[in-house]
Amino acid sequence: MKLMRMGPVGQERPALLGADGVLRDLSGLTPDIDGAFLAGGGVERVRAALAAGSLPPLDGTGLRTGAPLARPGKVVCIGLNYRDHAEETGAAIPPRPVVFMKDPGTVVGPYDPVLIPRGSVKTDWEVELAVVIGRRARYLDSPAEALEAVAGYAVSNDVSEREFQLEYSGQWDLGKSCESFNPLGPWLVTADEVADPQDLGLALSVNGTERQRSGTKNMIFTVAHIVHYLSQYLVLEPGDVINTGTPAGVALGLPDHPYLRPGDVMELSIDGLGSQRQTLVPA
Amino acid sequence: MKLMRMGPVGQERPALLGADGVLRDLSGLTPDIDGAFLAGGGVERVRAALAAGSLPPLDGTGLRTGAPLARPGKVVCIGLNYRDHAEETGAAIPPRPVVFMKDPGTVVGPYDPVLIPRGSVKTDWEVELAVVIGRRARYLDSPAEALEAVAGYAVSNDVSEREFQLEYSGQWDLGKSCESFNPLGPWLVTADEVADPQDLGLALSVNGTERQRSGTKNMIFTVAHIVHYLSQYLVLEPGDVINTGTPAGVALGLPDHPYLRPGDVMELSIDGLGSQRQTLVPA
Repeated sequence: MKLMRMGPVGQERPALLGADGVLRDLSGLTPDIDGAFLAGGGVERVRAALAAGSLPPLDGTGLRTGAPLARPGKVVCIGLNYRDHAEETGAAIPPRPVVFMKDPGTVVGPYDPVLIPRGSVKTDWEVELAVVIGRRARYLDSPAEALEAVAGYAVSNDVSEREFQLEYSGQWDLGKSCESFNPLGPWLVTADEVADPQDLGLALSVNGTERQRSGTKNMIFTVAHIVHYLSQYLVLEPGDVINTGTPAGVALGLPDHPYLRPGDVMELSIDGLGSQRQTLVPA
Repeated sequence: MKLMRMGPVGQERPALLGADGVLRDLSGLTPDIDGAFLAGGGVERVRAALAAGSLPPLDGTGLRTGAPLARPGKVVCIGLNYRDHAEETGAAIPPRPVVFMKDPGTVVGPYDPVLIPRGSVKTDWEVELAVVIGRRARYLDSPAEALEAVAGYAVSNDVSEREFQLEYSGQWDLGKSCESFNPLGPWLVTADEVADPQDLGLALSVNGTERQRSGTKNMIFTVAHIVHYLSQYLVLEPGDVINTGTPAGVALGLPDHPYLRPGDVMELSIDGLGSQRQTLVPA
């Protein structure tokens, strides 16, 4: 199923985009798509209501598409998780997942503008597969068990300011946490509809020029490995998001470093998870 | 004023510890002490109700003390913010604040047990002044303006696993984000009661042996500097927490590296902000 949140910022209404292309209103079932919804059997309730034909249609005309998940408790990111991206940035291939965090307040809708921070000259793009946690994961026994904790998947743009990330200190979070730096969605696609999270093509273009094209098969650490690994060190809670890393082709790694400027347009997509489009504007 | 949250995990009741030593119930005024409370004039409502004598007493007998703030949206940490701590860890004095993040789910009460992660042999302590944001801070004009965004202060223990933090990758967040790694409180002391946040003594002992003793006057970057600095790169929201760094005396910096073991007891305090006490237990 494809879960969505439609409406103005802070007033999004939970919705379902059916296989028939019809948008249906979930606000009779849940106030929102969030950790409590995922932890409390929300996906199963939606499935049952859909089967029973009891979900009213929602007229999406003119409605903004919000991020498909409200208020993630945390956004965990995996750095350098594609060999070609590690190489383009001059980094070694990591022997373990490189884990950092992003302000969860950076999550915005998939078509919302992305703000170039004041003073920024190195704002960059990163298409990534986002994993949304549906079940508490703490000291999982094996990677095989890990996918059971995943509620679903979404397209994520892990926007990054490279000067703030790499030149101000050794810690990356500052350059990852600027306002609007995590477009998510349009859909939270439930895990049952993603046959293999390691078999998804992903791509990103800027102003129509393709910059990134790869597949999740090229990840160094798989989704199952990452979820199991993280659960050995921290507690993953329903509604948490994991950005699983980006392939080569970011401005940082290109010869002419074509960092983003106001008016630029990013378009990104992942097989089966939909497409995003953001215009850059000054903060 | 000293704001508190009393009761079992997840069922804490908002409370006020009066200057008369009497605990008063705030649950008639607000469902919780959180970002919405701070953003919505909650502190002023409590002050008025206290003056009007309309707050009922709360019998705290046998009640657990929770963290004085529910669900921070993010926990931002400043690394190496005391010269002697930077020196003891072999790090250079940072020219800018070193910014990283901690899972907000790590926040626990000031007397709750702290869990030693499975496999950990380098769990360490860090007494810190925590700043709680009360007003949205985005591109503040000056450090002078920054303190107006501060709702109050609290004692924080920025517990850290040094192997996970320093040896697994260059990014620190993993070793800062283990379960229970951020005892906070006992009180959120409103900013009006802290005459000068740069004039507070802080100390920590383990099993009765003093390990850290310093003052916030020794910070490299002041609270006002940090809040202003952060606001140039990310958006601080009401209910966000900033851990402002720790002075020398952590196990990492001591000659014999006396990392924490099950049964050890940490006691820490900051002038005017109260004391914490945690026992270490295996996760």
